[in-house]
Parts: sequence; structure tokens; C-alpha cells
Amino acid sequence: MPDDTSPTSPAGRVAPAATERRAASRLARVASFLAMDVLSAAGAIERAGGSVIHMELGEPSAPTPRRIRDAAKRALDGDRVSYTEALGRGALRERIGRHYRDTYGVTVDPARIVVTTGSSAGFVLAFLALFEPGARVAVSAPGYPAYRNIFAALGIEAVPVPLDDANGWTITGAAVERLHAEAPLAGVLAMSPANPSGVTMKRETLAALAGACRRLGLWFVSDEIYHGLTYGVAAETALAFDDEAVIVNSFSKYYCMTGWRIGWLVLPERLVRGVERLAQNLYISPPYLSQVAAEAAFDAIDELEAIKAGYAANRDLFLNELPKMGLGKGPAADGAFYLYIDVSHLTDDSLTLSRAILRKAGVAVTPGLDFDPDNGGRFIRLSYAGSQADCREAVSRLYSFVTANA
Amino acid sequence: MPDDTSPTSPAGRVAPAATERRAASRLARVASFLAMDVLSAAGAIERAGGSVIHMELGEPSAPTPRRIRDAAKRALDGDRVSYTEALGRGALRERIGRHYRDTYGVTVDPARIVVTTGSSAGFVLAFLALFEPGARVAVSAPGYPAYRNIFAALGIEAVPVPLDDANGWTITGAAVERLHAEAPLAGVLAMSPANPSGVTMKRETLAALAGACRRLGLWFVSDEIYHGLTYGVAAETALAFDDEAVIVNSFSKYYCMTGWRIGWLVLPERLVRGVERLAQNLYISPPYLSQVAAEAAFDAIDELEAIKAGYAANRDLFLNELPKMGLGKGPAADGAFYLYIDVSHLTDDSLTLSRAILRKAGVAVTPGLDFDPDNGGRFIRLSYAGSQADCREAVSRLYSFVTANA
Repeated sequence: MPDDTSPTSPAGRVAPAATERRAASRLARVASFLAMDVLSAAGAIERAGGSVIHMELGEPSAPTPRRIRDAAKRALDGDRVSYTEALGRGALRERIGRHYRDTYGVTVDPARIVVTTGSSAGFVLAFLALFEPGARVAVSAPGYPAYRNIFAALGIEAVPVPLDDANGWTITGAAVERLHAEAPLAGVLAMSPANPSGVTMKRETLAALAGACRRLGLWFVSDEIYHGLTYGVAAETALAFDDEAVIVNSFSKYYCMTGWRIGWLVLPERLVRGVERLAQNLYISPPYLSQVAAEAAFDAIDELEAIKAGYAANRDLFLNELPKMGLGKGPAADGAFYLYIDVSHLTDDSLTLSRAILRKAGVAVTPGLDFDPDNGGRFIRLSYAGSQADCREAVSRLYSFVTANA
Repeated sequence: MPDDTSPTSPAGRVAPAATERRAASRLARVASFLAMDVLSAAGAIERAGGSVIHMELGEPSAPTPRRIRDAAKRALDGDRVSYTEALGRGALRERIGRHYRDTYGVTVDPARIVVTTGSSAGFVLAFLALFEPGARVAVSAPGYPAYRNIFAALGIEAVPVPLDDANGWTITGAAVERLHAEAPLAGVLAMSPANPSGVTMKRETLAALAGACRRLGLWFVSDEIYHGLTYGVAAETALAFDDEAVIVNSFSKYYCMTGWRIGWLVLPERLVRGVERLAQNLYISPPYLSQVAAEAAFDAIDELEAIKAGYAANRDLFLNELPKMGLGKGPAADGAFYLYIDVSHLTDDSLTLSRAILRKAGVAVTPGLDFDPDNGGRFIRLSYAGSQADCREAVSRLYSFVTANA
């Protein structure tokens, strides 16, 4: 080959060293989470013998309920733990269908339900199925950072919709109409209850948003993974207002099954076969044990409601105590297990503030910049999914921090 | 809005009905498996009370070994089943690193090992990390159909390398140099032992292929998911010949853990941080219990070798009996649990033949067209991962079929 100088043979002319192999450019476009920086600093403190209260994790501190774990143990004794249908086990799809009838009074054919490897897989499947490369999709700012990053990996353009007190911290139908008029959108991705704001969309707001999407011919992707976790309000499924809405849901949050990686999609019937092919190729099937366990999750409501009562008590504590520290501003959170706290009187650099709160007070929080690169410098997110003892200690430590820094 | 006729406002002028929402075009580009057609016909026969021997599944018939299941049960009793690090639990990464030393005598820093949700996730992460949209990547024909379909979903171009007796049914360094000279490649994806051919690459062939990739500056992705399953030969890891090779591996096949969805990547160190960000966003983490169980898999070698001895006996049976039926042609299979059988004396439409074998003989096989749209009409794939009783019955049924159709 070294002697081959034919012009059609670049192989013979150039012999790049291995170091010239380049990673794909999207590897650089996918941002890392600033929370990881906080998390590793917290780990360093703990390894040095210090104490950290973890309010930065979007994860229930309670273990998966006993009844769910027992179902997995029975399967370990009796089953082969094999691949399943790519769309998930029939029994679980039926059970999720029943959940829509029982919870929302909405009829969903189990044939439209796709069991996924967590909502993570649900997003990837939905985005690949709905959006061409280059498509513009409206997402909230602040919002779940993986939305933007999955979009970046798949070549889809995230169009941020800034949330604030004026729009009630939700994407509205009017905002979508305005954005679509500026440059056509392909879809809207909304979340209720929302991460990081904790805001649950009102029934009429969700109806208006779904209506705008339907009128404009935009796909409506509704992230409902925090359903079940609302306080004094009810979360409506977007299916109640648009039968073609694409629903992303998960057993991670209300059902305390993060590590099981199991969730589901509801799709318009005509997309199911195509998504089945995608799922076969990209995932083969969701994990077997997690599917068996998820079916049992619907029978663990007593345990799950007790856990939720703990979140409600934590939320009450913070809603009472934070205003006394000057940390009472931010969206009115009635869902999920988050508070998105306005700290603009203290800083416009929430990363530096988060580091200071960790170092001086031993409380780990998430900088708002993870959720909103533009305005997140003025916010921190606090998760109250921990124990009540931890939350009380966090209140005490935050009070000391604020007092010392006043 | 209906009165808004400004030229910058498409939203005001058009109000498409919901039915105008279109699925993304890649949904149509991802092909379905013809094997699914065979599988659903087999299901219909079984539901009608008929008998089917399943030789079409790429899955061990043995359950996951007891020791592996026991590790998961212990975790269900004691652990919280939470998210883990996106790259996987440290203990499992260490254990996989030790496996490289023990099995191949190759040193791999655990920091370069990424635990993945099955090799499916490994492929998606590797392809996104290595290849830009539009990149050309050489893949074998026949080959694992999900390669082509994941490429189609991600906008990567699969460049087929036809395999035959002349090239020993493997991608060779010479073939890659030729293809790259015609139009530049970005990488090569090879598999040994291979699906569907069962061919294990010889050490010198693998070395030459790795060398060609290194010389040409192409990424070398080596799918090693059937390692551990070879008969009378040894499978080498590509890392022995190219420290920058990207290794995809899995606990599904040798370790009998299909339904657990757990595998791993080995990456060049400089790609790890970028892939960690991708993995955080696309998967959050691999399933917790599967990681705990996978760690125990390395201690279940006695059970696993007994299962493999069953495959070896099945393989011997078929290699003895198939030639007597005129089904002895095809690649010399010394790995995985597949035989890729030349049926060109019977048909050039392996789908129709597969349907006939199922209907008349009650044996389910996979049409070669799933693995090779061009030449797969002349082949069927037979999996011998089933029980020895099933394999003996399959031989008898196939003999009757061939005799009746001679």
C-alpha cells in the first residue's frame, strides 16, 4: 500500500496515526450536569468525615416498597429472566391501561402502551419517532436538562420557552402560537408536575396547550413522570385533551423504582408499529424483572401513599420555614418533590452559591443553571424527597448559613 | 389568530388537523425483523395445539444460573435499588477489568469500562460518540440486523462488506482498505464470534483488520458479545491489537442474562467523559439489580460451562446430521450458537422456505434475509442454544421435511 499513489486511493497516500481518530462533534455538544460537580464535592466532604444533607437528588430516599421487591423475588425463583416482547409484557401493558381508567377516567387501549427502559428510553423512542433532524421543539426553561441534551445528541433543536410568574411557570398555548408564528415548530414538550419548579399545570392551562398543539398540527409530548405526587391539586393527563398526545411516564418517582429503569409511553395507534421496530433495535426489550415488579407497583399504593405523606410533611416544613430565611420566593410548587427557590437577592451565580451552601452549611442543593443556562443563575433547586429528620436538619443548617451571610 | 394574515405567521394562516401530524421519516427506514413474522406464525401454531421446536431465538434456553439470581435476591433484601453512577457501579467495573487480565492477559483500566444497559445501549453510545451523521461505517453482510437499523435511526450509513468462502466469512483488513479507497470510511464494525455465521476470527485476521483500521485512522468497533462461546478455538479481544478499539460486550449470551439487559463498553480513555455525559442523559444508569447480578456472573463459571457443554453437544449433533440432509454447506461455525446454512439448492427465498419448514415440520428457523437483504435469500440461520432433546427432535423433523421435499 505505501507504493500506491493512485489518486483514487487515499488509503495508500495517507496513513493517519491512531490519535487522529476524532470523537463525533455531538459528544462536545452534550453538556455535563453542574450538579455532578456539587455531588463530587459532597462526596469529598463525606469521605473526609464531614456531614452532608442531600437535597440535590431527584430520587426518593425510601426504598422500593416491599410488595414490589417481593414480586421480583418470586420471579427470580420461578422465571427464566428472558427477553420479552419489545413493547413489554402483555400483562403489564394491560395493567397500565387499567391505571388510566382508574386514575383519570380515560380509556387507553393497551395496544397503544409501550413499556420502556425508564422514561429515558421513552424520550429517545418518542423523539426519534416524532421529530426529523433539525426539527424545532418547544421546551420549558427551566426544564429537565436531559431534554436539551438528548435533543443535541439526536440533532433536534430545543426552542426554550422562558417560564416566570407572568405565565404561571408553565408553557401556555399562547406562547406556543407565538413561537410557531416566528418559525415553525414540530412539537411541544411539557411536564406537569414539573422539574425543577414543582408546578402542576391547571386543567384549563393544559387543555389550552393541548388545543393549540392540535390546531397547529404540532406533536404534544407530555412528561407525566411526577404524576401521583401532587399536594392539594390533581394532575390531569394530556390524553384527556388530545387523544394524539404522546405520554411519557415512569415508575421511578411516585412508585420509588428509580434503579429498576422502567417506564412507559402512550402513543397514537398509528405510531406503535414503527416504535416497536425502533425499540427492538435500540433496546431489544425492557428489563424482565423490572416489568414483573412494575406490575406489582399498582398494588403497593398503601406503602406509596405513606411515603408521599412524608414528602407532604417535608414540603409543609419548607414552605413554613424558608420565607423566614428570605428564601420564600419562586414558583408555587404543588407537585413533584422540588422547590425552585429564587436567590436573586443573594447572587446571580447559583453554582458558586451552591458550592458555598455545601461547604459552609453541609447542605447539597442543585444550581438552577443546570435547568436554565440563561436565568438559572438566580435559582437553586431543593429536593424534599429525603427523610423528615434530614429536612429538619437542612432547615436548621440553611438558617445558620443565611444568618451568617446576611 | 384566524385574522392574522401576516406573512411571518404561518400559525395564523394554516390550522392543520391533528391527522397532519407526521411521524419522522426514520420510522419507515428502520426495518422490521422477518423473524417476527416466523415467530408470530409459530405462536399461532402453538395456540392451536401444534408443536414447534424453536431454533430461531438468539437466546440461551437455560435460565440464569442460581448464583447470579441469588446475588439479585440478596440485593432485593438489603439494598435501595437506586440509580447508580451513569458509568456503572465501581465494583462491577473493577471486576470486568479483572476479567480482561484473567481471560486475555490484557490490562484494562476500569476507568475505561462503561457498564451499559445491554449491548444495545453500548452500540447507541459508541455510535453516537464515534460517528457523525452521514459517516460511512463498514459492517458485515450477513450481520446482526440491529446494526443497520440503529445506523438508520442515527443517520449513519452502513457500508456492507459481503462475506463468503473467499474471505473466510470475516471482514478483512484488505477489504477495508479497498472500501476506504473507494470512498472514505469513518469506522469498521466487526463481530467475532459472529451472528449469524458462528465464525470466530483467527488471531492473525483480527490483527490485520485492527492494523488496517489503525493505519487508516478508522474507528474499530469490535462486538465481542459471543466471547466465551467458542468450540475448539479461542476468541481474541481486539484490544490485544489496538488499544483504541471500542469493545462492545454483554452478559446476555455466555452468562445467560438476556432479560437483565446488562453489558459493557471498553473505550479509549479520552472518550470516557463524553460518553459519561451521553449515558447520563440517554440512560441515567443501567439497572441496579442487573449490575449486582452481573458481578456475581464471574463466579458462576461452573454452571455456565455446563450450559456451554450442552451447546457443544448440540453443535456436534447438527454438524454430523445436517450434511446427511444436504444441509451441510455454509460458513464453518466454531463460535456463538448459530449455524448459517446454505439452502441455495432449495430456494433463493429463505423467508418462504422458513415458513414452509415451520408449517410442515414444526421447526422455527430464521430466514437469512434478516441478516443480509442481498444474499440472505439463500441461507437460513439455526440456533442451537436450546435443549439437547429439542435439537434431536429438530434433526428428526428437518430430515422428514427434506426427504418429503426432495
